[in-house]
Order: sequence, then structure tokens, then C-alpha cells
Amino acid sequence: MRLAQLSERSGVSAATIKYYLREGLLPPGRQVNATTAEYDEEHLRRLRLVRAMIQVGRIPVATVREVLGHVDDDSLGRTIRVGAALWALPQVPEPDEDDAYVRAAHREADALLDTLGWENARQLTTISPAYRRLVVALAAFRRLGYDWDAELLVTRARLMHQAAVADLDFLETQPSEEEKVEAAVASAVLVEPMLQALHRLAQEEESARRYGFE
Amino acid sequence: MRLAQLSERSGVSAATIKYYLREGLLPPGRQVNATTAEYDEEHLRRLRLVRAMIQVGRIPVATVREVLGHVDDDSLGRTIRVGAALWALPQVPEPDEDDAYVRAAHREADALLDTLGWENARQLTTISPAYRRLVVALAAFRRLGYDWDAELLVTRARLMHQAAVADLDFLETQPSEEEKVEAAVASAVLVEPMLQALHRLAQEEESARRYGFE
Repeated sequence: MRLAQLSERSGVSAATIKYYLREGLLPPGRQVNATTAEYDEEHLRRLRLVRAMIQVGRIPVATVREVLGHVDDDSLGRTIRVGAALWALPQVPEPDEDDAYVRAAHREADALLDTLGWENARQLTTISPAYRRLVVALAAFRRLGYDWDAELLVTRARLMHQAAVADLDFLETQPSEEEKVEAAVASAVLVEPMLQALHRLAQEEESARRYGFE
Repeated sequence: MRLAQLSERSGVSAATIKYYLREGLLPPGRQVNATTAEYDEEHLRRLRLVRAMIQVGRIPVATVREVLGHVDDDSLGRTIRVGAALWALPQVPEPDEDDAYVRAAHREADALLDTLGWENARQLTTISPAYRRLVVALAAFRRLGYDWDAELLVTRARLMHQAAVADLDFLETQPSEEEKVEAAVASAVLVEPMLQALHRLAQEEESARRYGFE
């Protein structure tokens, strides 16, 4: 398809597509003559992913470029390729390791992973931004003086593991290796806001079931 | 306790506490003489909640004041009181109802609630920001051309309902009505980042279980 058609099918303006091409977020089309290039379904798919990151995820162009670099690096195995792509997404700031709450949060997070039997995640604690995010959240929690039982997190972590199993089952339905990796990134950006919305909606539903609308 | 002790126990500086008092985010202490006021456990609890919203939730002071107004309004039943407080938290922008994707997303969200049997949430669709958030997320999803099966959301919604049941069970362990409402707001601000972190960690764990670290 031509650029005009790529624009029509994606709903992204031709000017924006040209900008993405210049920025290297979209691979060049196949040049058919001096002024015309041809684009295919892969361009359309990549354009959607770029759009998801920029429009929904509000991720800066330089970061999008970095994420795509990992998505396209087929020298890596899938776990690391998806991991590298997700880890390039914007993350929480580094926790301050001199802070007593941060050190306590590390112990709490490690104990949680042990309780859950998440042995693989346990091996990634030095490099995983998701682990760092958990530590930051736990430290904030305890610093504020909330001493809610750690058991509460175990229940939620098990539910999140069930969600992750569903995520991976879905990824496996994607036809190619590249589409699997792209779908992992797109769903990180797009599905997380839905999970949040569903969680709040479920709280409203459950609260009304228990206490009515009074 | 005196202001200095409130500061020590909360880890919030005396200057910041005075600022919160001036802004009406913290009720005044009991005046014991012209220059000294006495604070109690309720002040400490409220201070933690304010801190959670401002520091972790990055919520503007005017919004915090509005949320607290609902938390303190004991003329309301619990569902509405918690609802009003959570609904005052920063939300997604209004969806554009003239947009075809938004209208389709409404139909999809309503069908999802019907499938789930969330009859109460179904009654709140015109006023609930969580519902609006779901509609915005679904519209973005479909606009980008992802045609992933709606069934995927059903699984996740059921998991989120189980999390909501755990949330409400926890709230019921709080001793007073006021503490129940406060805990609902604090957990919205503090637990959501943890759920996100746990979801990502669970994805890493599950991916490594299936594909190893290669």
C-alpha cells in the first residue's frame, strides 16, 4: 500500500507517519520509484504499536526507539527480548538504598517472592524494574505507617500470576515470534489501564453488593 | 501529643504539618493555651492519608481537600462515601461521545458488565469514572486496530473482582467507619502501584518458567 493508504488504515496522518519514518520508529517502505514507496501489513502493525506507546503510554520518542530496538533484536531469547523491551519503558526512580524503609522493603519483597515460590523473579531482583517498583511502593507504604499484613499481598500476587498466565497464553496465539514480542509490549501499555479500571469497577460492584447504594 | 511529636511520629516536617493545617487538610489540634495545641492518633492517621495522596499519588492539594470532604461526610452511606472520595481522585479526561470508537467502546463495556453479571456497576455507568476509564482504554485499544477477543477481558475482570473482594474483606477489619473509608482511599492510592508491579513481576516469572532465561 501507499503512504496515503497506510494513513487511512491506521488513522495516523501522513505527516505523522513521515515524522516516524524520519525518527526511525518505522522501517522505510520498499522504494518503487524516486517518489513512491510501498508499505505492508508489518508497517501497519508497527505503526499501531508506536501509536500505543506514544498516545496511550505517553512515552517519549527516544524511549520508543529504544524499546523497538529490543523488540527487533532477534539475537535474544523471548524472555529476555520481551524483558528488555518492557524494561526500557519508563520506570520508577531508583530506590534510595541507604534508606531504612527501602532496606526493609527489600526484605519484605524477597520474603513475598519466597512465599509465592516465584524463583525466577527472585533471580531477577537485581535487574528487574518491576521488582524495584514493588520495593518503592512497599517502602512508601510502610513509611506512611500503614502496617497492613503482608498476607494481603500474597492473595493479590497470586491473582496477578493468574492474569500473567492468561497474558502469556494469549501471546502464544500470535502467529510469529515478532508479533509475540510486539503484543507483549502493546499489552503492557494498553492492558494495564484496563486492569486498573476493572479493579475500581469491581470495587464499586462489590461495595454496592455488600452495602447497597445508601 | 505536641506538633513536634506529631512530626517525629509521622516523619513529616513541622513546617509541612503547619502548611496542611493552614490548607485545612488536617483538622486543628485542641488548643491547650495561646501557643500550644494538642494532637491525637486521629491527626496522625489523617496525616498519613494526606501524605499518601500528595507524595505517592501526586494529587494536587485542592483535590486532596475535596476527597477529604467526602471522607468526612458521615451523612452518606459507605458505598457512596467511598465512591465520592475515590471519584474525586484525578481521573481520565471525558471520552468524546461523538467518536465512533467511543460509542463502540460503550457497547463493549456494557456487554462486558452484562457477561460478568456486575449489575450494580451497570447502574453506575453514567456517573462512574472507573467505567469512563474503561471506555477510554477500550476505545484507544480498538482505534489502534487491535482486535483481541473480548473474552480476554472477562478473565481479567473476574480476577479483579476477586482482588476487590479481598480489598473489602480487609476494609471490614478496620475498627471504625471513618477508618474504613480512609483505608479505602489510601489503598486506592497505595495498592494500585503494587498491583501493577506484581503484575509485571508475575509476567517475568511466568515467561521465565515457560521459556527460560534464554
